[in-house]
Amino acid sequence: MNQIIESKYKLDQAKILEEVHVFAPATVANMICGFDILGFAVDEPGDEVIMRKTEKLGIEILKITGDDGKLPLDAMKNTVSHSAWKLFCDLGLQNSFGLSIELHKKMPIGSGLGSSAASTVAGIFALNELLGQPLSKKELLPYCMEGERLACGAAHADNVAPSLFGGITLIPSYEPLLVRSLPVPENLYATLIYPKVEVQTKEARKLIKDKVQLSKAIKQWGNIASLISALYENDYEEIGRSMQDEIIEPNRSLLIPFFDEMKQISLENNALTFGISGSGPTVIALTNDKANAERIEQHLHHFLHIHQIEHQTFVSKINERGPYVKN
Amino acid sequence: MNQIIESKYKLDQAKILEEVHVFAPATVANMICGFDILGFAVDEPGDEVIMRKTEKLGIEILKITGDDGKLPLDAMKNTVSHSAWKLFCDLGLQNSFGLSIELHKKMPIGSGLGSSAASTVAGIFALNELLGQPLSKKELLPYCMEGERLACGAAHADNVAPSLFGGITLIPSYEPLLVRSLPVPENLYATLIYPKVEVQTKEARKLIKDKVQLSKAIKQWGNIASLISALYENDYEEIGRSMQDEIIEPNRSLLIPFFDEMKQISLENNALTFGISGSGPTVIALTNDKANAERIEQHLHHFLHIHQIEHQTFVSKINERGPYVKN
Repeated sequence: MNQIIESKYKLDQAKILEEVHVFAPATVANMICGFDILGFAVDEPGDEVIMRKTEKLGIEILKITGDDGKLPLDAMKNTVSHSAWKLFCDLGLQNSFGLSIELHKKMPIGSGLGSSAASTVAGIFALNELLGQPLSKKELLPYCMEGERLACGAAHADNVAPSLFGGITLIPSYEPLLVRSLPVPENLYATLIYPKVEVQTKEARKLIKDKVQLSKAIKQWGNIASLISALYENDYEEIGRSMQDEIIEPNRSLLIPFFDEMKQISLENNALTFGISGSGPTVIALTNDKANAERIEQHLHHFLHIHQIEHQTFVSKINERGPYVKN
Repeated sequence: MNQIIESKYKLDQAKILEEVHVFAPATVANMICGFDILGFAVDEPGDEVIMRKTEKLGIEILKITGDDGKLPLDAMKNTVSHSAWKLFCDLGLQNSFGLSIELHKKMPIGSGLGSSAASTVAGIFALNELLGQPLSKKELLPYCMEGERLACGAAHADNVAPSLFGGITLIPSYEPLLVRSLPVPENLYATLIYPKVEVQTKEARKLIKDKVQLSKAIKQWGNIASLISALYENDYEEIGRSMQDEIIEPNRSLLIPFFDEMKQISLENNALTFGISGSGPTVIALTNDKANAERIEQHLHHFLHIHQIEHQTFVSKINERGPYVKN
């Protein structure tokens, strides 16, 4: 990796900034039916990183907010600084100047919203902006995946790819690493409900059996194929019908309080589909209408309130631009 | 079914023809990576049916050619007459006049080219033409599937759907029965090689395990998703890369003489991909160039000739129109 980058990259000192402030979006991995291969970004929530050039060499985390003290301030243990430092060193800059980072978490950790991915992408994107955009997003992706390896134990791309590229992304292959950006139907709205029950991705993965019935796998890949076609055709009805999961959801939904009830409420209120975001416990209802998305949010909020489940809700369109510099 | 049809269908005696001669195309089920959900039609080979209106009530098979005497002349045991008769009766015509059928098999039976499907589709399409096109193709599909139930023991649609609709079809769901027509990239050519070893679909299915590794299923549905996207994007390279099968091919290829060698020869000669057509033993190489398709045909013909394997070869574009009336 570093050989490829160094040969292409000529540092233009004039382009290096003193400070950047970047937002990177949360993501819904799996898109219900596409376990480990699909994901999309949302307009909100998302994480923010402020990165500064420092005279002091090395990388440091100045502060982290919004994490309830859960994330490490040690720069080599935090995904944001760890992955940014890897890129910084691969660019041969470690003896030129240093970096300081502020991380502002604007979303719950361990929620199934790609929290670590959003932070990592914000950091990598911020570094690339700070340096005058020497690399393409495609070149940044492996560094974002490195962050996921530190956070989750595996270099998955199903959160970092949509957070970095925006929109709906498909990762059909890791060797070679391939990412396809899929069309985003204009009127898709996501209602995200995070019941405050922590689910670690590592733990959630343990609930998944390593073998599946061929008949269920066939149904799943039929639905995935149809979802892709429906995205190209703006076919909302089929988007909804195809986004169903009989392989992962039956086990993972057990970790989510009132999953079946929330699903029923959502479908009764015109959700196209309802399922788990990433490894949960956040759940997602998709609609083709903002009013419906907000109505579902209200109904689920009311329902969880009655059952005394602490929660957060978000209504968002699909984020098509990925991370961006905040003014 | 019959209630729906009868209520919509008013027989227009003036439109009924005395005789029609129909061609229906062979099909490549599965498209290598899309087991049980994908298929496409080819321009050749295909089967032909001549159907005539008769004064004598009932349905009869006048003659069958090209089957080496393998297919039943008993009208209730032959898929063509069986399915056409079901439609004829559902339309309430069984006491109005009779039908006679000539079936001309122009492709090998039990070859993995959708032989029974092409015959059934030719028969159903011929009947609908004879009657003045009272039904849509969508309405004809369940009758074609009935024919598959008689031929293979299960009402699969992955051969009859592409043979009937033409092009590339996706069947994401049987309940409800859904068929999606996918875009056909203009320069796709199929080289089909049928080594004369009979493989019964029922027998070939027995070689398939009823459980699959989740990791392999994920790889498969990633490839299927990417194939669908690549068809919409005219991305020939990704069409080739994505059309690989690690679930079904490893077992089924054991029934096909020199499978690995034929695959290697095809890939060395610019095939985008190579795999099994349907349940085999026909194999298929896809290319984006007619000259390459013909070169692969020649190489494989030469190879099988040396190894004294009797065979047939076909080079064809994807058939986009489905069955048609022959002049």
